[in-house]
Amino acid sequence: MRKAIEGEKMHAYPGMVALVTSQLEERSNVMAAGWHAYIGASPGMYGIALREETFTYGLVRPSGIFGVNFLPAAQTEAIQGAGTFGGHEGGKLERLGLGFEPGLKTGVPILSDAYMAYECRVVDMNAYGDHYWIVGEIVQVYQDEALFGADGLPDLSKLSIPLYMGRASYRILDERAENKIHRL
Amino acid sequence: MRKAIEGEKMHAYPGMVALVTSQLEERSNVMAAGWHAYIGASPGMYGIALREETFTYGLVRPSGIFGVNFLPAAQTEAIQGAGTFGGHEGGKLERLGLGFEPGLKTGVPILSDAYMAYECRVVDMNAYGDHYWIVGEIVQVYQDEALFGADGLPDLSKLSIPLYMGRASYRILDERAENKIHRL
Repeated sequence: MRKAIEGEKMHAYPGMVALVTSQLEERSNVMAAGWHAYIGASPGMYGIALREETFTYGLVRPSGIFGVNFLPAAQTEAIQGAGTFGGHEGGKLERLGLGFEPGLKTGVPILSDAYMAYECRVVDMNAYGDHYWIVGEIVQVYQDEALFGADGLPDLSKLSIPLYMGRASYRILDERAENKIHRL
Repeated sequence: MRKAIEGEKMHAYPGMVALVTSQLEERSNVMAAGWHAYIGASPGMYGIALREETFTYGLVRPSGIFGVNFLPAAQTEAIQGAGTFGGHEGGKLERLGLGFEPGLKTGVPILSDAYMAYECRVVDMNAYGDHYWIVGEIVQVYQDEALFGADGLPDLSKLSIPLYMGRASYRILDERAENKIHRL
């Protein structure tokens, strides 16, 4: 039975993990962000929540650019590593075995294995609670169109999507998951 | 193969749908928001993207309160109805068959079938692209604790979670989904 709960209780998952890439001069990084959202269109806008003490924040703040990358289910170990290891030692992309190319518009790393990715320029940044909410305008989209159907949705017969549940645990969404369609 | 795409391409799903409830004097409403995120802790903060022309925006802006509700998989038809029908005619909660109680802190409707819900007070609101991003401080949490495990994660043997895919289509996440745990 549902009841009122004292204090805080974070409920953000199951959900996709955004791998946030960053670049400032010769330094680059990748981290996993569980708190993120597509938040506007015309132009497309993407928001990510970052703590100030992350290495990524230290790169995004002065550079004003970040990447948002979505990896398929085969890559959950790299996703977990991106969420667990710090970036201060450098070379985190290489340590995680994540190939990348510089983005066309900003040079921020775009992961080679991302089936969908965005290059963003920061347009706003505000602190809410213990995180900064960083809003970027999407200036370049990347997509593996072969993994999406004619309706624009992911084709789960070709693309298995990892959903983070919390506590290092992932569930894989694939075509075996029950499908419900409600055209009202 | 991944390639650069011209123009916009929204990728926000699969993901949970937030049923946003609102109340202003005698008027109440519910709508489905696909663009939303938990964005900060200490205190908990939740963000929702709303277009200005929605009935919900018209209630949230002057009242400064909203609810965020998560429904189980049995309720996908009501979720789709909340995302499809407008609120201007009134009585949308009743039309969708959604029971509710007034929230303890703000009086905003909290859905009886929500396994998790938040009552929020607006702390900030900014336009990004064609949506407003509305940030609320979570002032009261509701949870059906019997549906969560000792680790705090949803217990998928008891709770099936609907994931919106886009275009009226949902996939159901239940215990049959492959589980991967990466403790690094």
